[in-house]
Amino acid sequence: MTIPPRLVEVREKILKQNDLLAQSLRQKFEKSGVYVISLVSSPGSGKTKLLEKTLSWMYQKYSVAVLVGDLATDNDAIRLSSTNALVKQIITGTICHLDAQMVENALKDWDLKSLDCLFIENVGNLVCPSSYDLGEALRIVLMSVTEGEDKPLKYPTIFNTADIAVITKLDLAKAVEFDFLLAYKNIQAVRPGIKVFELSAKSGQGMDEWLEFIQKLLQKG
Amino acid sequence: MTIPPRLVEVREKILKQNDLLAQSLRQKFEKSGVYVISLVSSPGSGKTKLLEKTLSWMYQKYSVAVLVGDLATDNDAIRLSSTNALVKQIITGTICHLDAQMVENALKDWDLKSLDCLFIENVGNLVCPSSYDLGEALRIVLMSVTEGEDKPLKYPTIFNTADIAVITKLDLAKAVEFDFLLAYKNIQAVRPGIKVFELSAKSGQGMDEWLEFIQKLLQKG
Repeated sequence: MTIPPRLVEVREKILKQNDLLAQSLRQKFEKSGVYVISLVSSPGSGKTKLLEKTLSWMYQKYSVAVLVGDLATDNDAIRLSSTNALVKQIITGTICHLDAQMVENALKDWDLKSLDCLFIENVGNLVCPSSYDLGEALRIVLMSVTEGEDKPLKYPTIFNTADIAVITKLDLAKAVEFDFLLAYKNIQAVRPGIKVFELSAKSGQGMDEWLEFIQKLLQKG
Repeated sequence: MTIPPRLVEVREKILKQNDLLAQSLRQKFEKSGVYVISLVSSPGSGKTKLLEKTLSWMYQKYSVAVLVGDLATDNDAIRLSSTNALVKQIITGTICHLDAQMVENALKDWDLKSLDCLFIENVGNLVCPSSYDLGEALRIVLMSVTEGEDKPLKYPTIFNTADIAVITKLDLAKAVEFDFLLAYKNIQAVRPGIKVFELSAKSGQGMDEWLEFIQKLLQKG
């Protein structure tokens, strides 16, 4: 149905309110010296798996925390807690995305100054999270080879609002006859110039380049 | 952020308006003798691939049409048009789900009485489509083995509003070490008693049972 103007108006107000809060969070993060990276993707693209591997490696060098968003269950927080990182689950109920207020609330009892890096894993959804700034320094969009090469064209906004793209589950690329050239073409069509990683958190392929990239971010940050 | 009561009120009104229209669509479908099946899933779970195979088989026996929803591109409509079914793409722009009004608009120049079956492929999203009745007789939720066994627990509402679940990409089950028992346990936990199919539209595994099921639906319908 055509959305009535009143709803548009109310949504715009909420988005504006979110942007203001996100901006103040961003300043707080910068002041505290914590580098904030958010991850967005479809359900099951491998956000948690990539974080598991990344955190296990980072823990030796950095003080890292994770906020993980889901409609229901704290499964991901349980998975990630084995990495020794500080982890908190945000349960959104029926809400299809994280917003800046949820992030602010979840951070209340953490000392940001003691952290080098904070990851925010959004609800698995290629649409709605694109509209909500969380105050992150870097937004990473993941797509797995099993989802097909056309996802950037079909969900352009989420790719367009991301800083980095990661093609995941590289170990399955042959089995699904993944066409890398086509995928790159599609990613660049909606987000020209974006850096793209290819990796498999399961097999380890591409993980060295990824971890080196994270390390460089934190050196700069 | 906490959603202001005004937005909740407006959203509830929209949902109510959608439900009324969906109800009138449902009556129209029944009166016209067209059986309407909607498909919901994450992006890249294989809705279009399953429809391609299903429509190619159905075309010999039935008059079939498809509405396919996406934020952008008419890629899926192009893919499905090779099946000789009547196909129309609904481009939703930034809207994360189909609603009853979009379905009604898309059907305006089709003669429903000439159809045996109408498929509605929703936008790839495991959250938002669950709230929107489209007037369908049957809602099918798909999950691919590559998404992981936990998806029903993490996205309970979409499984809870579905009539049938389909586990897709069975050809990749071994490669991802998919735990069928766990997946079934999780599906049944959020939607007790739901019938579950397992298939691969690529390898053909499980397709006979699926097509037999569709045929039986149309005999009853």
